[in-house]
Amino acid sequence: MSSRTDFERAAALDAVDPLARFRERFVCDQPELIYLDGNSLGMLPKGSRDWLLSEIDDGWGARLVRAWPERWIELPFRIGSKVAELIGAEPEEVGLCDSTTVNLFKLTVAALRARPDRTRIVTDDSNFPSDLYALLSAARTTSGCELRVVETSSPDVDVSKHIETFLDDGTALLALSHTAFKSGRIHDMRRLTDSAHRVGALTLWDLSHSVGAVPTDLAGCDADLAVGCTYKYLHGGPGAPAFLFVRKDLHASLLNPIWGWFGDRDPFEFGLEYRPAPGIRRFTVGTPPILSMVPVEVGVDLVLEAGMGAIRNKSILLTSFLVELWENGLVGLGVRLGSPRLASERGSHVAFSHPEGLRICKALIELENVVPDFRFPDNVRFGLSPLATSFQDVLEGVVRLERVISGRAYERVSSLRPKVT
Amino acid sequence: MSSRTDFERAAALDAVDPLARFRERFVCDQPELIYLDGNSLGMLPKGSRDWLLSEIDDGWGARLVRAWPERWIELPFRIGSKVAELIGAEPEEVGLCDSTTVNLFKLTVAALRARPDRTRIVTDDSNFPSDLYALLSAARTTSGCELRVVETSSPDVDVSKHIETFLDDGTALLALSHTAFKSGRIHDMRRLTDSAHRVGALTLWDLSHSVGAVPTDLAGCDADLAVGCTYKYLHGGPGAPAFLFVRKDLHASLLNPIWGWFGDRDPFEFGLEYRPAPGIRRFTVGTPPILSMVPVEVGVDLVLEAGMGAIRNKSILLTSFLVELWENGLVGLGVRLGSPRLASERGSHVAFSHPEGLRICKALIELENVVPDFRFPDNVRFGLSPLATSFQDVLEGVVRLERVISGRAYERVSSLRPKVT
Repeated sequence: MSSRTDFERAAALDAVDPLARFRERFVCDQPELIYLDGNSLGMLPKGSRDWLLSEIDDGWGARLVRAWPERWIELPFRIGSKVAELIGAEPEEVGLCDSTTVNLFKLTVAALRARPDRTRIVTDDSNFPSDLYALLSAARTTSGCELRVVETSSPDVDVSKHIETFLDDGTALLALSHTAFKSGRIHDMRRLTDSAHRVGALTLWDLSHSVGAVPTDLAGCDADLAVGCTYKYLHGGPGAPAFLFVRKDLHASLLNPIWGWFGDRDPFEFGLEYRPAPGIRRFTVGTPPILSMVPVEVGVDLVLEAGMGAIRNKSILLTSFLVELWENGLVGLGVRLGSPRLASERGSHVAFSHPEGLRICKALIELENVVPDFRFPDNVRFGLSPLATSFQDVLEGVVRLERVISGRAYERVSSLRPKVT
Repeated sequence: MSSRTDFERAAALDAVDPLARFRERFVCDQPELIYLDGNSLGMLPKGSRDWLLSEIDDGWGARLVRAWPERWIELPFRIGSKVAELIGAEPEEVGLCDSTTVNLFKLTVAALRARPDRTRIVTDDSNFPSDLYALLSAARTTSGCELRVVETSSPDVDVSKHIETFLDDGTALLALSHTAFKSGRIHDMRRLTDSAHRVGALTLWDLSHSVGAVPTDLAGCDADLAVGCTYKYLHGGPGAPAFLFVRKDLHASLLNPIWGWFGDRDPFEFGLEYRPAPGIRRFTVGTPPILSMVPVEVGVDLVLEAGMGAIRNKSILLTSFLVELWENGLVGLGVRLGSPRLASERGSHVAFSHPEGLRICKALIELENVVPDFRFPDNVRFGLSPLATSFQDVLEGVVRLERVISGRAYERVSSLRPKVT
């Protein structure tokens, strides 16, 4: 169980944390709340409220449709160029549009059509279920294509090596989540991209659980395609539009399968023929949801200001501290670790499992004012946002978790599954 | 040219307008501005600002991820059920998601797959270009399918009859914009839906320029599918998510071609297999952009409060007044009417054309503080929002337009095309 020393250590870690000052940039006025779900919905940056109000009042209210050329039309690409900096891409390789799932569909179909002599998408079972659905529906859209879901979730598997055995000259695309949503395990992007390229396949990386927490070097890895979510570690707000990345030299040869006016070379010429825009813009479709997009820039700016190096350092310290607390206490309460032990192999969330996982999770929320994340069937995740989570938050979360388990407080809550956690 | 009598008439029309009181429900604090682009971006309802702030502060800021089950998860369908009331559909037949273009793509592919023995989509050249692009890309997604674009823009054509000649047992889908974006002409939904059904085809209506201005009776017409935009006459805000409609008895047999977790029967079970949700939910894909969706409800509530009957009455009076002013003045200045003369055949915007249309439009914006809408190559549209536009606005817009043309003020502005108007 947690001791006085743990509290002293947590306080000391916070005292020397170079990113500690970012905490006050977020709305954070519930001292009793321990928020550990930054990997699902990142906290609200104070700046987002003001920025959004100015877009509403000065943009929509005052400038009305004139705000489109003045403020909004370039927004998806201005923010995209900033996201590019976070993921190791060129500014003109990233744009914001649609949802992560719709973007996965678009890029997957585009990739399959660019490899017409190949019929297979390879992914693994650690991928986010919505990604699997999108990949399978993209495969079904392209005659004769199939999705192969490699099992990599068993702990004994050498993941990269195992995936490589499924890559061959029938493989059109290797599509993986860089950081797995459940375990937090990080795939070896460089090695797997190389392996895919060696057989002539393209790669598509979902960076949803990496961007803003785990640095990636898309250019250095020669990655082909990527998508990602902006409402987790980028603090972009509920359901904020996703981003997509297409490596520059692929822009001309890949075609968005969904043609819409924003992807046209000149949307406001209103020509009857679709002529795809030359750059990343061709992968967009319809009018972007501006009010949901505006806060993304505020979150991305915070991440840029902190720097991905410092963010990764803190993330590793946070998750390592949590794993240590698990080792010293939670393990004795029957909690299993569902994330890699090695910090270099995991992202910024840590998964625990327990037979009473669901009720424990609900008890944390309902009785202890701790908000973790639950994943069916028994997975309690602590998502640690490098900008908003303190070491004392981590400790306090663990103390309350220990209390819920050791005092069997979870027996006081219903075992009905909540709709979203 | 406009006379003293016109001013008296405009004031009298405003005085007896039962919807005049709605004007103060919108942000409208620029007395010199004449905003006539409600068919592109509807004005900001005062209530939207407050509602959005409460979602930001009390939702995202305070409840964080807990706001999903508490506030947001049902939002697309709660608003959808209200939109249903405006378009003559059942509450469970409408949902909000994605952009209009993405929804067109999804429903078109779904329709083509439901008619596997047919290979043709029929549309017309008055359809919005982005719709044509979406339809063509959907056709290309489905082996052997083609898009037939019927020419109906010539004024001598009996539109319905002409379209009917292209419907046969090879037609899978008839896809049309109910109210045309350029001319404002309204298609005969009942007749054309009947004609399509007679040959065994499905129908897909784009209601973007109708919803909130021109009533439709989807149930009465037995329409199959529809999509529409929420940021025009519904005042939902820049790029607000679109809606889609699928008639109830088609839910089970039509499948969304883009599979994502929000379309799954149980998104939070995180199963590896996609199992489409039973109702309208199956046509959604990814996480909805909440901050862009919230204001849609405010706009829809205003339209419901006013009632579609009163809205259509006022819309007809507004456009008729404008056509009359054209007849008495603008026509003598070389302005041609690009919309139907008969009020029953047109929606809530009126199109004018003039060889100097582009510069006239720019002069109105830059010199006269009138914001109309420009459509390439020479089309100036006056979009009249039944809730926010007064008869005096219409007259003042015409007076300034007359001034720009008769004084050749347009010669003082550049002829470079702006990016968006």
